[in-house]
Amino acid sequence: MSYDPSNIFAKILAGELPCHTVYEDDVALVMMDIFPQSRGHTLVIPKAASRNLLDADPAALSAVMPLVQRVAVALKSVTGADGLRLAQFNEAPAGQTVFHLHFHLIPVYDGAELGAHASSRADDAELADLAKAIAAAL
Amino acid sequence: MSYDPSNIFAKILAGELPCHTVYEDDVALVMMDIFPQSRGHTLVIPKAASRNLLDADPAALSAVMPLVQRVAVALKSVTGADGLRLAQFNEAPAGQTVFHLHFHLIPVYDGAELGAHASSRADDAELADLAKAIAAAL
Repeated sequence: MSYDPSNIFAKILAGELPCHTVYEDDVALVMMDIFPQSRGHTLVIPKAASRNLLDADPAALSAVMPLVQRVAVALKSVTGADGLRLAQFNEAPAGQTVFHLHFHLIPVYDGAELGAHASSRADDAELADLAKAIAAAL
Repeated sequence: MSYDPSNIFAKILAGELPCHTVYEDDVALVMMDIFPQSRGHTLVIPKAASRNLLDADPAALSAVMPLVQRVAVALKSVTGADGLRLAQFNEAPAGQTVFHLHFHLIPVYDGAELGAHASSRADDAELADLAKAIAAAL
């Protein structure tokens, strides 16, 4: 399976499509998932082009993980979540819908079921507020 | 939340409990999950002690990810899975049951639902065969 540069995250990374940015550096873009499985669902998108984990540059994986951790800590703090899931899907049968490597950070709240992914679009004002709060906590 | 060194993975890392080892080096132990969510469910357990992602040494995260990738590629090849999920749970509400950082690699097969974690113990002979096959493909 090869990398298709016309995927939506490549367009966001190129600035051709908008997103609710939390953070950006040379390694990755961090943004809010607009179809969140829970309040605060955040994506960490390495800038290095790969379809998923299977074809990624190992150095890019090493570079991005400390940022994934920083975002996880900030996200848990800001949302007051009781737990947090890190998830990354490879190929469509596993749930991958955008074919540029990305890591999901999904807050889990006691007593609340996680929503199905892509089931309902979040409110843009709420996403903008969350992005700002997480950025401030990074 | 602090690290409790009496957790079961610490005991496995110390050689005090058995496991179906796939691979081991200075960075991590790779073993079969004995309560697999699907055939081939594999765990990558960094040797550095941390409760989960939130308190891990960032350098340990960078060190383990290329191995997580190598195992993912070998696992998909050996099992013939159609997709693969990487998952890591932080705190009990998110599904964490053993409080030593570990990464799940879960093969996904077209048309098959993933089982609930820890619902049924796999056959030891099958796990031993899988461990051997994945090790050979690494």
